[in-house]
Amino acid sequence: MPKLPEILEIKTIAQTRLFHVESMHLKFSNGEERDYERLRSGKRGAVMVIPMPDPETVLLIREYAAGVESYELAFPKGLMEIGETACEAANREMKEEVGFGGKDLKLLKEFSLAPGYLSHQMSLVVARELYEEKLPGDEPEELEVVPWSVNQLDKLIDRNDFTEARSIAAIYLLQRFLENQ
Amino acid sequence: MPKLPEILEIKTIAQTRLFHVESMHLKFSNGEERDYERLRSGKRGAVMVIPMPDPETVLLIREYAAGVESYELAFPKGLMEIGETACEAANREMKEEVGFGGKDLKLLKEFSLAPGYLSHQMSLVVARELYEEKLPGDEPEELEVVPWSVNQLDKLIDRNDFTEARSIAAIYLLQRFLENQ
Repeated sequence: MPKLPEILEIKTIAQTRLFHVESMHLKFSNGEERDYERLRSGKRGAVMVIPMPDPETVLLIREYAAGVESYELAFPKGLMEIGETACEAANREMKEEVGFGGKDLKLLKEFSLAPGYLSHQMSLVVARELYEEKLPGDEPEELEVVPWSVNQLDKLIDRNDFTEARSIAAIYLLQRFLENQ
Repeated sequence: MPKLPEILEIKTIAQTRLFHVESMHLKFSNGEERDYERLRSGKRGAVMVIPMPDPETVLLIREYAAGVESYELAFPKGLMEIGETACEAANREMKEEVGFGGKDLKLLKEFSLAPGYLSHQMSLVVARELYEEKLPGDEPEELEVVPWSVNQLDKLIDRNDFTEARSIAAIYLLQRFLENQ
């Protein structure tokens, strides 16, 4: 494993409500020096949750995605609140976005998103033994909940509105988890 | 499918060498209005490439990831140059990062990254029938190339240095592609 580069300087070069851009001056172990820019996430982590109302079904949501200006199918996700574990945050997000809590929550993997320039990390949780419970969310409109058969997960890949790498990774990790059960 | 929200205003609120942050004022079809922030990518797309020197092997690279301050295993990737197709860009990146070109290049999927707040899209390409050709890259240090058996792709998931959702999605899509061959 190579020796980590030395971080000679980190400074904030832009800050908005959501985004915090840093410039880093790095010295690599071979002596090369470079400036990198990265987006710094808040201290709170993020979660993505796969709700399973029964062993054959997952729940997706259809939500407006401002980055690509279209409605996308994806698994519910959101930021963790202070003091929450990943599973607690997953349960709350699920109550807000699909109207269910879960009694059986398991952490499948911690993702990075684009580790070259984002510090952002996300925990993937699968939720089973669901029960109805709705919490108010902060969405501008009601989210459409779309049940999907676990035997048809492959079909999602070919859709133009299921493009998010984290959701594709999630169905792979879910299949792997279910096979090992 | 819901009616898309109306974009009442888009303005740049921060701009650095790499990042361009926009604020959008949106009016949803139910009348709700919200401000969203998003990161706007350049006009050039991005590619990720899975190099296959033989039918049983893929090539990974080990590269410093400034966002998470560690060395990560991942597939080669980079920005497309003006006028390049995704496959041409994949071939060039592969020559720069692993020292091979490919005669057989196939587009597997177009990913989004975090479509809620990033406009970023990435084309995933699989490259076969490789030949040796090295182009100079702009990396600060030589990248370590790590061959990995296609029969052991699952083992990558359990590693702490293989966390990128796009790379995990890539191995799923590769397995699916190879099964359908």
